[in-house]
Amino acid sequence: MLAIRPVFYVSDGTGITAETIGHSLLTQFTDTHFISERYPFVDTVERAHEVAARIRAVGEQHGARPIVINSCVNSDVCAAVCESGALVLDVFAPFIDPLERELGQMRQRHMGRAHAIVDFDTYHRRINAMNFALTHDDGQSIDYSEADVILVAVSRAGKTPTCVYLALHYGVRAANYPLVDEDLDHDRLPPRLRAHRHKLFGLTIDPQRLHQIRQERRPNSRYAQLETCRREVAAAETMFRAERVPTLSTTHTSIEEIASKVLTTLNIRREMF
Amino acid sequence: MLAIRPVFYVSDGTGITAETIGHSLLTQFTDTHFISERYPFVDTVERAHEVAARIRAVGEQHGARPIVINSCVNSDVCAAVCESGALVLDVFAPFIDPLERELGQMRQRHMGRAHAIVDFDTYHRRINAMNFALTHDDGQSIDYSEADVILVAVSRAGKTPTCVYLALHYGVRAANYPLVDEDLDHDRLPPRLRAHRHKLFGLTIDPQRLHQIRQERRPNSRYAQLETCRREVAAAETMFRAERVPTLSTTHTSIEEIASKVLTTLNIRREMF
Repeated sequence: MLAIRPVFYVSDGTGITAETIGHSLLTQFTDTHFISERYPFVDTVERAHEVAARIRAVGEQHGARPIVINSCVNSDVCAAVCESGALVLDVFAPFIDPLERELGQMRQRHMGRAHAIVDFDTYHRRINAMNFALTHDDGQSIDYSEADVILVAVSRAGKTPTCVYLALHYGVRAANYPLVDEDLDHDRLPPRLRAHRHKLFGLTIDPQRLHQIRQERRPNSRYAQLETCRREVAAAETMFRAERVPTLSTTHTSIEEIASKVLTTLNIRREMF
Repeated sequence: MLAIRPVFYVSDGTGITAETIGHSLLTQFTDTHFISERYPFVDTVERAHEVAARIRAVGEQHGARPIVINSCVNSDVCAAVCESGALVLDVFAPFIDPLERELGQMRQRHMGRAHAIVDFDTYHRRINAMNFALTHDDGQSIDYSEADVILVAVSRAGKTPTCVYLALHYGVRAANYPLVDEDLDHDRLPPRLRAHRHKLFGLTIDPQRLHQIRQERRPNSRYAQLETCRREVAAAETMFRAERVPTLSTTHTSIEEIASKVLTTLNIRREMF
């Protein structure tokens, strides 16, 4: 049985930065079972004292020294968090000094800034991209000329979550084109996509896995049959090859990995939100 | 004019961890204009050499030493990246040693693990939550008993992006309930929500801002009129107060901040994806 170790993400903002780096670090330690709690918006010394008391109590309960991943910038708040007796890892501290020296300027200690709204225009672009992804889902209302990218795939291969991720995190206007039977009867691109060739990215998937996914959606339908999945995937892959559409298999690929590959392959440069 | 400084996010995986921490760090330095490029999936020494050459060239082009935010775990790959001559900040290095000592174990140097699919069940839960958010958007097909949270608000107050974010990042099944005129004629909860009181979270918004957002969607409609927005927001706020529904204003609040507050307020504990 794995040893249990409590982990706390403490932040003066959302805690997303702390949790992202903490999660990446802890996945590298496979012999421990981490249980985690998050404490966002810890922006006063009083609140930090409360959180420190809670951390100490959970540590005593489990008989294990807690680990705190801390992204608070105020030094009094940080000091109060340290009273928990936990191993406190400050996600910014190691980098501030080299950056200040390199840039020849001191950092601004704004609290909770990373995932706040800094700039309304940028934020607005993000929400608009999100609405674009949702209204252009499964070819409902198509104006592909406004899209930055068009994901092309058979039904349930991973288009929608990827489009939404691209919109949410990069403000990318991602449309999707679901390949239906009449498209798959030909090896060539559907006519509506031909003018947008440089925006296309094809997703493919293992037919067995597609079969499982479709079974959950419409059990024992023709749509979900393994034979249908095999035929559709083979036809889509033939089309992608013939038309030289860049392609990725989503079978063992997370949404983040697909999104990252799409941006890199189509050379779309956007700041991450 | 702000000095320009090139920044590179280099990773053996998606680069999301590197970019998240890098972005948080750099927002603390307001006197520099950072221009960034991302290089995900740098998982061979050969690729690292190519990327290092590109980094060096961009630095020379701008006459400024580049900054690299690096999350590669392989030490040969890291060494090749360092040949760029950039200031290389390794996002994991400062934390590995204290964690190894605290946990009494060595880290596993898996490449690109943080945002890959580690566990299919968990991943599946995430995709299902996503589908739930999309099919329960704007009350299209409602089974609130399956929801973990129900966001309640007037149209365009921020429900949909928040639901999708909660699903994507926490696997939370987030439904939303759009308050329409007949709901707003009363100060009490709409009947369909009463059985789910403990899952409710209300969003509100400044009427002026709501007016702007609706104007873009349906210009000069009754729906978009400032007077309509004022009336709807006031009625919603009255209902939230009377029914003690926890409430947040989205006017100056990012999707991440709303999501973080919802999870904390409703005490929903989920690992972040």
